[in-house]
Amino acid sequence: MPANGLDYSALFNRNLPPPSGPWDGHPRYNFIGGHSDPDMVPAEGFIESAARVFRGDPRNISMYNFSGGPQGILPLREFLVEKLAQHRGIETTIDDVLITSGSGQGIELINEILLEEGDTAIVEAFSFSGAIGNLRRRQVNVVGVDLDEDGMRTDHLAELLEGLRDQGVRPKYIYTIPTLQNPTGTVLTMERRERLLELSEEYGVPIFEDECYADLIFEGEYENAIRSMDDANRVLHIGSFSKTLGPGTRLGYVVAPWEVMSRLLSRKNDAGTGVMDQMIVGDYFTHHYEEHILDMRAALKRKCDVLSSALRESFGPSIEFDVPRGGMYLWVKLPAGVDSRDLVAPALREGIAFNPGPDWSADPDAAAGYIRLCFALPSDAEIREGIEKLADVFRREGALP
Amino acid sequence: MPANGLDYSALFNRNLPPPSGPWDGHPRYNFIGGHSDPDMVPAEGFIESAARVFRGDPRNISMYNFSGGPQGILPLREFLVEKLAQHRGIETTIDDVLITSGSGQGIELINEILLEEGDTAIVEAFSFSGAIGNLRRRQVNVVGVDLDEDGMRTDHLAELLEGLRDQGVRPKYIYTIPTLQNPTGTVLTMERRERLLELSEEYGVPIFEDECYADLIFEGEYENAIRSMDDANRVLHIGSFSKTLGPGTRLGYVVAPWEVMSRLLSRKNDAGTGVMDQMIVGDYFTHHYEEHILDMRAALKRKCDVLSSALRESFGPSIEFDVPRGGMYLWVKLPAGVDSRDLVAPALREGIAFNPGPDWSADPDAAAGYIRLCFALPSDAEIREGIEKLADVFRREGALP
Repeated sequence: MPANGLDYSALFNRNLPPPSGPWDGHPRYNFIGGHSDPDMVPAEGFIESAARVFRGDPRNISMYNFSGGPQGILPLREFLVEKLAQHRGIETTIDDVLITSGSGQGIELINEILLEEGDTAIVEAFSFSGAIGNLRRRQVNVVGVDLDEDGMRTDHLAELLEGLRDQGVRPKYIYTIPTLQNPTGTVLTMERRERLLELSEEYGVPIFEDECYADLIFEGEYENAIRSMDDANRVLHIGSFSKTLGPGTRLGYVVAPWEVMSRLLSRKNDAGTGVMDQMIVGDYFTHHYEEHILDMRAALKRKCDVLSSALRESFGPSIEFDVPRGGMYLWVKLPAGVDSRDLVAPALREGIAFNPGPDWSADPDAAAGYIRLCFALPSDAEIREGIEKLADVFRREGALP
Repeated sequence: MPANGLDYSALFNRNLPPPSGPWDGHPRYNFIGGHSDPDMVPAEGFIESAARVFRGDPRNISMYNFSGGPQGILPLREFLVEKLAQHRGIETTIDDVLITSGSGQGIELINEILLEEGDTAIVEAFSFSGAIGNLRRRQVNVVGVDLDEDGMRTDHLAELLEGLRDQGVRPKYIYTIPTLQNPTGTVLTMERRERLLELSEEYGVPIFEDECYADLIFEGEYENAIRSMDDANRVLHIGSFSKTLGPGTRLGYVVAPWEVMSRLLSRKNDAGTGVMDQMIVGDYFTHHYEEHILDMRAALKRKCDVLSSALRESFGPSIEFDVPRGGMYLWVKLPAGVDSRDLVAPALREGIAFNPGPDWSADPDAAAGYIRLCFALPSDAEIREGIEKLADVFRREGALP
């Protein structure tokens, strides 16, 4: 800034987060975030779809909300209704579907209409950092429910709800990622899904079901969404295209009854979600969903195996992890006493990035001994090299025997 | 909702706006909003660009913020730096450019970092409804500066700043649309642009320059941006691709120094602006900007002439308007005593939609006698028919002699 430049410091809102640092580029061995497999971007399919939709529906581009209004263009909503019925057991109509700019916008909008400062929200003890961060920004009390290998422990949830009721607190929702939970990769049993609905009814607390990863089960039949068993609109359901196609496509969706939808729409002040994404993805998935998702699952399963083997080889028995039934993450428990936050900077100096557990936890300290590794982006060779180097760093830092 | 359904009414945040109504579809004669000319969507150019970028840079789709990080992909920012230099006289670098999800997100982010409840912001007396609405939602005091045929009256601005200083108020910014002002279509003279910078310096108030329409001058040379004369970072500059390509492309941009940029980034919580839009538009404009913008200007000039003639023919001398040097709107003054809000519903019953003046005014009642007509979307024939029918409605309602 020139010496005589305007000084903005006195003009800023006094409640801002710290400023962002400059962009450093991506690390060489990148195990963070929810990046997708670059080899699985269907470039030729997108090109074919782009040709069809740009020639077919150019008015979509020239207008705000052309084909379908503020809830999103019709072909994409129609595809979703079909997909949710076939793959998630959900009966819905295009009127209950809202296309959002990523599932993050779904979380933002649902929070915007339900939450006030001082409210209480229930989440899984380990959960999506973006969902937890959004609650913290709003100064909402975040209560964590224990997880085991079958997902959220509904017996613990019942206790928590009872305890909160005794204190006169009605939580605003129970946020759950039942299918391929982030970060643990667990899948909630059908029995517990039913139990969740019972508890929702008993305590009058909606279920906020996030199924961003549900399409990524590696193989076989799998559990229907909680929303599929809900005949009383207790479940607000969200999902994403970021994980099945890539996060560069900023597309997610909310399934909600009109009572809620009409409020979400009143807070969706973005002049519409990107129409090019909606057109291309809607057309591509209408023609290629089944084959694409099978290829994606196979690729992720292979990389999951590569990462699991690499971890066992380089880290040995001093770490623990379960191999998930799908998704793109391993949630790894480090030896007792190690704090994963201390290892971030040393690893980054070697070009390796991972997510330390605390960001994925209702109680940050409770996850100090965990790291989350995303295996979707790096190549098989990068996974092997990166994990070998990471073990070296951990050993050097005294985090491994 | 089933009879036994969960009742959300007790769960909603208590400070929500009214729920949205159901989507009714677009009116037959559509003169509202900032829709674009559907014949000007470069479908073949987009298809060619889609093929090039999807084959060339698939990693952009598989990653959050791949090529260029959170400020937006490099080819689009590089194009912008070039365009801003050639067409707006602005010297900048890719480090000072942020790609946003429409220029509305630029307004939202700038407001987010600068404004608190009770602050004061200065706008042109008639101005963009989205900018005014955003300020009102934040409970910011909106002060309007008079306009004449040369844009914002800087003599009035000086008086207002002086008066506010006497009250101990330092406004957070002066929001202006200097080039093809929305809604009036005026262009601020270079002399006044310089005066604005002097006043910004004297009172320590930044200028928030919105150039969403500046590319749409019908013909000839035109005034450089205020930012082009600013050597002290007094100007925060925004623009859009919605008006040059169509609002379905949710792309805008902010030009700001790092002191401000680092704060904008800390509030941009959307996991990135849509990458498909950025890739396709960046490539298309890198190859075709000059020819596209000339075609767009010619098309808009023709429609402006059609609308002007239709208004003179059907409404006669009882209305007043200036034919602008560019853009996509006419700002029409109705006969004395007529309130445009009363005419919205009768017109809509005939399938005709226009924007009543009050939404585009710092003081709503001061614009009761105006309507804004957008001529970009309807065909020439629809403009003629729609205006003839609109005059009939106005006459029937007693708004015209």
